[in-house]
Amino acid sequence: MSPNEKFMAVRSTTERICSALEKEDYVVQPVVDVSPPKWHLGHTTWFFETFVLSVHAKDYQHFHSGYDYVFNSYYENAGARVIRTDRGNLSRPTVDDIFLYRRYVDQAMLKLLENAGSDVLDLVQLGLNHEQQHQELLWYDIKYILGHNPLFPAYGENHIEKNLKGENPGWVRSEAGVYEIGNTGEGFYFDNELGRHKVYVREFEISTALVTNKEYVEFIASGGYRDFNLWHAEGWDWVKLQGIKAPLYWYEVDGEWQRYGYSGLEKLDLDQPVSHISYFEAYAFAAWKGMRLPTEFEWEVVSSRVNWGMLWEWTSSAYLPYPGFSKAPGALGEYNGKFMVNQQVLRGASIATADGHSRNTYRNFFHADLRWMFSGIRLVR
Amino acid sequence: MSPNEKFMAVRSTTERICSALEKEDYVVQPVVDVSPPKWHLGHTTWFFETFVLSVHAKDYQHFHSGYDYVFNSYYENAGARVIRTDRGNLSRPTVDDIFLYRRYVDQAMLKLLENAGSDVLDLVQLGLNHEQQHQELLWYDIKYILGHNPLFPAYGENHIEKNLKGENPGWVRSEAGVYEIGNTGEGFYFDNELGRHKVYVREFEISTALVTNKEYVEFIASGGYRDFNLWHAEGWDWVKLQGIKAPLYWYEVDGEWQRYGYSGLEKLDLDQPVSHISYFEAYAFAAWKGMRLPTEFEWEVVSSRVNWGMLWEWTSSAYLPYPGFSKAPGALGEYNGKFMVNQQVLRGASIATADGHSRNTYRNFFHADLRWMFSGIRLVR
Amino acid sequence: MSPNEKFMAVRSTTERICSALEKEDYVVQPVVDVSPPKWHLGHTTWFFETFVLSVHAKDYQHFHSGYDYVFNSYYENAGARVIRTDRGNLSRPTVDDIFLYRRYVDQAMLKLLENAGSDVLDLVQLGLNHEQQHQELLWYDIKYILGHNPLFPAYGENHIEKNLKGENPGWVRSEAGVYEIGNTGEGFYFDNELGRHKVYVREFEISTALVTNKEYVEFIASGGYRDFNLWHAEGWDWVKLQGIKAPLYWYEVDGEWQRYGYSGLEKLDLDQPVSHISYFEAYAFAAWKGMRLPTEFEWEVVSSRVNWGMLWEWTSSAYLPYPGFSKAPGALGEYNGKFMVNQQVLRGASIATADGHSRNTYRNFFHADLRWMFSGIRLVR
Amino acid sequence: MSPNEKFMAVRSTTERICSALEKEDYVVQPVVDVSPPKWHLGHTTWFFETFVLSVHAKDYQHFHSGYDYVFNSYYENAGARVIRTDRGNLSRPTVDDIFLYRRYVDQAMLKLLENAGSDVLDLVQLGLNHEQQHQELLWYDIKYILGHNPLFPAYGENHIEKNLKGENPGWVRSEAGVYEIGNTGEGFYFDNELGRHKVYVREFEISTALVTNKEYVEFIASGGYRDFNLWHAEGWDWVKLQGIKAPLYWYEVDGEWQRYGYSGLEKLDLDQPVSHISYFEAYAFAAWKGMRLPTEFEWEVVSSRVNWGMLWEWTSSAYLPYPGFSKAPGALGEYNGKFMVNQQVLRGASIATADGHSRNTYRNFFHADLRWMFSGIRLVR
Repeated sequence: MSPNEKFMAVRSTTERICSALEKEDYVVQPVVDVSPPKWHLGHTTWFFETFVLSVHAKDYQHFHSGYDYVFNSYYENAGARVIRTDRGNLSRPTVDDIFLYRRYVDQAMLKLLENAGSDVLDLVQLGLNHEQQHQELLWYDIKYILGHNPLFPAYGENHIEKNLKGENPGWVRSEAGVYEIGNTGEGFYFDNELGRHKVYVREFEISTALVTNKEYVEFIASGGYRDFNLWHAEGWDWVKLQGIKAPLYWYEVDGEWQRYGYSGLEKLDLDQPVSHISYFEAYAFAAWKGMRLPTEFEWEVVSSRVNWGMLWEWTSSAYLPYPGFSKAPGALGEYNGKFMVNQQVLRGASIATADGHSRNTYRNFFHADLRWMFSGIRLVR
Repeated sequence: MSPNEKFMAVRSTTERICSALEKEDYVVQPVVDVSPPKWHLGHTTWFFETFVLSVHAKDYQHFHSGYDYVFNSYYENAGARVIRTDRGNLSRPTVDDIFLYRRYVDQAMLKLLENAGSDVLDLVQLGLNHEQQHQELLWYDIKYILGHNPLFPAYGENHIEKNLKGENPGWVRSEAGVYEIGNTGEGFYFDNELGRHKVYVREFEISTALVTNKEYVEFIASGGYRDFNLWHAEGWDWVKLQGIKAPLYWYEVDGEWQRYGYSGLEKLDLDQPVSHISYFEAYAFAAWKGMRLPTEFEWEVVSSRVNWGMLWEWTSSAYLPYPGFSKAPGALGEYNGKFMVNQQVLRGASIATADGHSRNTYRNFFHADLRWMFSGIRLVR
Repeated sequence: MSPNEKFMAVRSTTERICSALEKEDYVVQPVVDVSPPKWHLGHTTWFFETFVLSVHAKDYQHFHSGYDYVFNSYYENAGARVIRTDRGNLSRPTVDDIFLYRRYVDQAMLKLLENAGSDVLDLVQLGLNHEQQHQELLWYDIKYILGHNPLFPAYGENHIEKNLKGENPGWVRSEAGVYEIGNTGEGFYFDNELGRHKVYVREFEISTALVTNKEYVEFIASGGYRDFNLWHAEGWDWVKLQGIKAPLYWYEVDGEWQRYGYSGLEKLDLDQPVSHISYFEAYAFAAWKGMRLPTEFEWEVVSSRVNWGMLWEWTSSAYLPYPGFSKAPGALGEYNGKFMVNQQVLRGASIATADGHSRNTYRNFFHADLRWMFSGIRLVR
Repeated sequence: MSPNEKFMAVRSTTERICSALEKEDYVVQPVVDVSPPKWHLGHTTWFFETFVLSVHAKDYQHFHSGYDYVFNSYYENAGARVIRTDRGNLSRPTVDDIFLYRRYVDQAMLKLLENAGSDVLDLVQLGLNHEQQHQELLWYDIKYILGHNPLFPAYGENHIEKNLKGENPGWVRSEAGVYEIGNTGEGFYFDNELGRHKVYVREFEISTALVTNKEYVEFIASGGYRDFNLWHAEGWDWVKLQGIKAPLYWYEVDGEWQRYGYSGLEKLDLDQPVSHISYFEAYAFAAWKGMRLPTEFEWEVVSSRVNWGMLWEWTSSAYLPYPGFSKAPGALGEYNGKFMVNQQVLRGASIATADGHSRNTYRNFFHADLRWMFSGIRLVR
């Protein structure tokens, strides 16, 4: 594909994800971690306007002087921003306004791409990967918005959850030794993957399959959410304070487990891998099994020997810089480094991850209590 | 007008107020006291469905079984409800759904009204007065939603604020004596007005005009927001904690006061009566002037001798039951009585009050810190 | 008694109330409304130092330059103060330090009183009445501190609760008419009592006895705390949020009601008047009985015809200024006026009220949710 | 020393640390992380009563049935506990009561130790190391209690801060290779040190000296607290929300830096190592220098080649289990494992660490925003 084609392929995918929504669905923000879909549509566009067009497109005129304020996410270097909890309070710009904004920026981008040098192409590649990350967030946020509405509306027929399947159970052994970890620096990568380095990894066995709903129901039935010995202290506080008794989107109705998915509220499929669980829950489940979660290094070592890509897999590794990590200068340097405290690494990819966006060196990360993303459990023993 | 015509006149007014909105404007709830416009549209309809059609219309079929949960406001007797802070998180039912709901209920109501007895007509009259109250809230909430958007969008050309004018200054004297206060029980009234009773009122003088923006600017310039001696202790805490420095919607730009109104951000009109002030501010302003606010009894005594209706006028009276007050049985008994603690009475009416909705015995009430309504100050000396 | 003797009588009473305490009891502040006893001891002394000695005693040297900051309560005019929630975090000054402070100020006061004019004597009278108010608060706060300790320690043998007794039930009728309400301005009074004025009061009947524990147990048993129809909306929120199921200090142990008192945890005495209830509870109880609470005017009208003084009696009157109320100039003007919003009036006195401190025009006031004071219910029908 | 002598040596050290306190100082809890000194005295005693005497001492009678509830810290397996924020609200048991409790348990322990087997001796060793940890916390908490009192009282003459000195600056190089990390399992160790394992460590240089106050003043002067590029996102939120502008206990008075220490408020000693800084601050300082913090593995590798023991040194390592880590069964298994999320490792020891309590494999840990402990910065380049 040409740069133009690649650009439009990603941009149109974003809009396709939203095509099943009602206008009202674009606006709301039920919790702070969820952003309104219209904000994602604007923010990914703002990224190209701010970091590409403003810098590289001659005589570029901003679409609207107020959008910089509305659509900046967390780039402190790029100026004031609407604080995150306010996003769901903004009815304007309207959805139509934002689609006009997308058209406007797309046109300017296509023009720029006609004669773009490698510096621009690199930035555009970053921008497209950034937009793919927001595509995944759009899936999460849409599910949250619809799944927390008391009417439990379905998203529609065409959705990703139909691809969610388990693997055959089994165990793969990995030998002890010094391994090279991290990205080799070819092709696209994020700054947090770089700094390929040696890590000594001990012998271990890892499961070929993710933990299933069936196994997780057993955990619940055996009192897993009531036995503090299985939990981190902070995890136990979270369970008690939030009244957690099951994964997100699970509802016990007349003794039967139901689950909200993009098709609406349905009976739980016991054979599917368990999803929408927090790190606290993944850890407690592993403790209950007498096993543990893999480190991100162990995961990378066996990544060519197990199938992955259904759900992001919690690792026991905290999200920390690799040796030699350094932030890029300027606003883009804020991309990853400043989040490297109090988060856990997840490896792999999920059914919501854009095609071509995943790598075995990819380091995803979330706070230990979050679970609105497609997260799952792979055990090590 | 026939009952049918009256019914449709009120119902269509509600929709006309919303006709200038974008769909997105119907959805958001920037603070807890503001409700999304689509919620008002649904709730006023739910009122007729629940208290009229469900009881009096033979074989009436509910439009949607889930709406009872979504559109109940605070009637504990009428079942579970979406807690108030959640209203802005609901993208469904959509605006279109709610207009269909209105059509459906309107049809059923018109049919019922064809042969309605006095019990039904009384309930409908209550429902229409209830809807008129929500029309006024719609004006407040729409202003808040647009006026707190960083893009400061205008509402449009046709709006109520163009009617806001001051009166000529002057003073009216009232003699001491025992007066009859409260509604005589003819025509429509709310339960909180009833219980006409004697009150001894001392001699006083009351202003013929509301306090103007010009006078209020002087209060600010003289340090009114920095002198705790003028404020209630709770008012002073509110000023400090919220960083209050001016009425709601006022912005000091380059040394000049601007004000957001339905026409957008404009230069402050000094001759208009000051509006969007809290009870705390009204009290502090009066203290600064060396005067005071009227009691609700004083206000009622002189109500035929001063012009009112521009802004709700804060009184120094707490919202308490009149002698002999008793709640109606059932859910409608929750209408007023249960709010009779920790609120202040406002008297009169405002530019946002529906035609025919005001009376000189009408008792409006708000918490002392609220100011998103059209509230103003009339002084007594 | 001479001024000197009166002064020392009040001052020593304060210390006698504390004499049963351990040093540790003087220090803690379990909730924001409770102050550490050592703070009361210091603050009442600071009052004399700041408003009497600093102004009227020639060459008076402050005991400690830092105490002004530590012992100011809410007098904004008197300078910065330790915010209320911090009082329980201060281990210094020690209890011994504060008793030395009292000795020092007492000496200076006694010397000043030898040749005091009427201006000083008036201030001292205010200071002593102020200290008597803190004596009552000391009783409340000590009970709270000991009664919320998991070991339930007793205060000791000599305490006020032994005086708490009920009256014979009965009803007194009062005729309609215009009555004079408020203090006549002779003897000592607080500024909020002044402004004697005419009030029209309707005919009513009032109970000669306060509501008993026995009646209140019936209210609980009949589901009073679960029926929202009996409650203010804010009261119902309070019941649900705080999980209120009984008066403060009541514990249901094996189906029997026990109550913490100064003697420790004991079986509830059913014949005593119910105490430690909030306005919300008093209102709900009256609603359950099909009766109501008196207004403060009704209370004053019959105050010579019923026995009172066991418990402060909640009235249905909000705490508002009497006609013509004006604040005294300076810091002492902050005494009452600035609290005249969002509080309810209580009339009478309690077993914790100092001898000679009560009058039938006395206006006590508390927020509607508070109940650590000795509050009770008298019904009107 | 005999087991008896060792036991009494540690126990008496705890009391000696408190000997300079006033009784009131034992009671307060100014923030949630600080515990009242009397609670430490009771809790360390409760540890011996619960885990040693109750299990191993024949016919042991508990000192008081309510103390189990009061003095449990976070051992969920050991029953209900006073929630942490309540500790400062408890005036009882008194300080004298608690010293009696200590005497009682000490007597029982000494008797038990006369014929103790290795299982008891192991438990006692754990109990004494536990008490030494609380000795260090006592130093922190006492400093916080006195240093946050508006009167800034001094602790007294005999205190640990006089030992705080810097080292000569310089750099030590460490070669790349696979190193053995963790405790060898001889002598006393905590469970989190165990699991000696291979780690590949790259070449690096580490400073022989901790960062000094002088260097840190330069960081402040150059705008370190205002440049978000230096901070983690969570760190920057913390700086803004808490208004952080300097290390804890620093006060800028008339342009000069003063610091509260056990001797009171004094001029800052520029040559001392900077202390009382959070992980966020340590990270930002290192970023400002263009350097970084060591990993805990790097630290352990060079621990025999640099002097340490003045201040706990923040590492860039998250607190995670070593390979093969498993919790001990029962309540003592809660000692460390359940805290292994969202905390950072500190290595070394501080002037407040008990003699004989430190090891180069010791893993201390705190949340990234805490700084009331003796924490400092050692740089790597």
